[in-house]
Amino acid sequence: MIVRAQAIPRAVRWDAQAQALLLLDQTQLPAEERYLRLTTPDEVAEAIRSLRVRGAPAIGIAGAFGLVLGLRDDLADDALRERMETTLGMLHSTRPTGSNLGWALDRLRRAFDDADGTGAAQVRKALEREACAIAAEDEAMCRRIGEAGVHLFPEEGGVVLTHCNAGALATGGIGTALAPIYEAAGRGIPVEVYARETRPLLQGARLTAWELERAGVPVTVIADSSAGALLSRRRVSFVIVGADRIAANGDVANKIGTYPLAVLARHHGIPFYVAVPRSTFDPRAPDGASIPIEERDGAELRGDHGDGVVPRGAEVWNPAFDVTPAHLVTAIVTDGGILRPPYTVTIRRLLDSVANQIPAQEKVDP
Amino acid sequence: MIVRAQAIPRAVRWDAQAQALLLLDQTQLPAEERYLRLTTPDEVAEAIRSLRVRGAPAIGIAGAFGLVLGLRDDLADDALRERMETTLGMLHSTRPTGSNLGWALDRLRRAFDDADGTGAAQVRKALEREACAIAAEDEAMCRRIGEAGVHLFPEEGGVVLTHCNAGALATGGIGTALAPIYEAAGRGIPVEVYARETRPLLQGARLTAWELERAGVPVTVIADSSAGALLSRRRVSFVIVGADRIAANGDVANKIGTYPLAVLARHHGIPFYVAVPRSTFDPRAPDGASIPIEERDGAELRGDHGDGVVPRGAEVWNPAFDVTPAHLVTAIVTDGGILRPPYTVTIRRLLDSVANQIPAQEKVDP
Repeated sequence: MIVRAQAIPRAVRWDAQAQALLLLDQTQLPAEERYLRLTTPDEVAEAIRSLRVRGAPAIGIAGAFGLVLGLRDDLADDALRERMETTLGMLHSTRPTGSNLGWALDRLRRAFDDADGTGAAQVRKALEREACAIAAEDEAMCRRIGEAGVHLFPEEGGVVLTHCNAGALATGGIGTALAPIYEAAGRGIPVEVYARETRPLLQGARLTAWELERAGVPVTVIADSSAGALLSRRRVSFVIVGADRIAANGDVANKIGTYPLAVLARHHGIPFYVAVPRSTFDPRAPDGASIPIEERDGAELRGDHGDGVVPRGAEVWNPAFDVTPAHLVTAIVTDGGILRPPYTVTIRRLLDSVANQIPAQEKVDP
Repeated sequence: MIVRAQAIPRAVRWDAQAQALLLLDQTQLPAEERYLRLTTPDEVAEAIRSLRVRGAPAIGIAGAFGLVLGLRDDLADDALRERMETTLGMLHSTRPTGSNLGWALDRLRRAFDDADGTGAAQVRKALEREACAIAAEDEAMCRRIGEAGVHLFPEEGGVVLTHCNAGALATGGIGTALAPIYEAAGRGIPVEVYARETRPLLQGARLTAWELERAGVPVTVIADSSAGALLSRRRVSFVIVGADRIAANGDVANKIGTYPLAVLARHHGIPFYVAVPRSTFDPRAPDGASIPIEERDGAELRGDHGDGVVPRGAEVWNPAFDVTPAHLVTAIVTDGGILRPPYTVTIRRLLDSVANQIPAQEKVDP
């Protein structure tokens, strides 16, 4: 198996020259690889809301650059803070469940505070620098998740089951759940991936299958419902998924269908791993119950081509995420190593070490 | 809640006058309620293979009439048996997993043996009579399943979760899993149904939602993956599904996704019921491992409109059924009452009582 590392796609990229966010429009995949060039916060918000960019880390990066795009050089000093707060609020409200967006915007607000009073051009420059740092750190964190997670594979290689897309398309790097897979494949360890299609929006079938196939990793798509039949055949080494937010106690909010998958893995005695950068942890959320769960439009289930799969008189319930209780999670693979229970302790320890662990050279200037 | 019993649809109907099988084309639902008029065994086999008629009991009935249609009055006596066996084999091979088709065809073969030598017209008449009896018995069995299963509801009513379609559209009557729901609704007990959409072919979204809504029962469609989030909210009284085949030990083969649902129900301490007519039991299959599992074309997952949801280079695995081990089944609701573990004993007892339990007046002549 040859893994074409250069073939791993990039979901978001900042064009410093043009001061524009280049964004792979994921709603068009796998049919078309089309890049958008966004220059206003409204365009970025629309792209997040309509899932042209998705995946908690990638949303965080896109949101950060969205805020940069809102601060124009010609704004008067006294209008700057108001513009920043309005734009930040607007961007923050696009998707409620993921942790990384709020985390990234908080960092930009702190950068704003530090630069406040130096004039619009300087403030904007400071925010751009911080957004670039977030993107560069995310890329580095993905790489470290891969290096930590590769040890989960048996030496002779393995078969992995994943859900939704927590790959390159969801991050600023090589992904979270898919990072150990890319890393293993790059080291010549034989890996094989089963991707659940992930209704209603089919990110597994459309995105995970697309990026793995593009990179040369063998991938098989299954219906979400086939995971039981697959696990009962005992070929799967482990299950690995990403997360949109992890509470202080280790409860995991992730794409709808993650929780039943964790229950199934436990039922079969198969390890269930969650892979995230540290920006996914929300120490302010004590547990899963305190994480807001986004409910999306029923039209996603009714069929977006207006072909009326669900009869008009029937209701639709379409939660976008579910919460997997910490006790079903075998380990959390992070850029700071592999966390094991008790998560309340190991997560706190990781977050306390944040300041020291991000090497300065990764804070790349724009 | 007013349940419009007359609004419950019929999947299959025999037109004795025209000697034709009238079949609601379920591939066109919910957009269009179109009935086909089939007059040859090949047409019936095509309808079964392409899921115009589906649901193990309805397939059994359709297959039986398909065999009747193969025996033409003008066949010479010595060509009759060969024609019968060829047609039977062809019909039997259409779907491997369901039990009822083989069961129905076996009954017609016995009717053939009894009538053999009386001439083509008489033999055909005997087979037609037996097929009509199977249809009438199935209708009666559905009614009895409803009467037995209605007692599963709390007196104040309840919320039920189901998978795929085990309703009127799957049988010759008011369904299996949906029969207790129709019965409860008819008695004025408040019921509410959550229907999993059931990928890849969406029988829950298209068929279960359609027939419940048509009959006036409140129904909400969810993605298959939302069952975990739903059950964790503790609003669901019980889960109830149909089955395509039940082995002698109580292992249940049913639509892919049933097994993970049973695991989830167990995890939440929610009862998991399976509702079937006795024709679904296969005493020759000692356990689930001996039930053949149909794998269907990956095109069902790739998207049948050729819109390329799954990239070409990715594989697809599309098993149509899974096996739920008996220990996850709280009870089996049958036309002969509610069976509880140990199923090896209770199933044998039910099947041993077959001959005595089907009242003669239900063996309706055509």
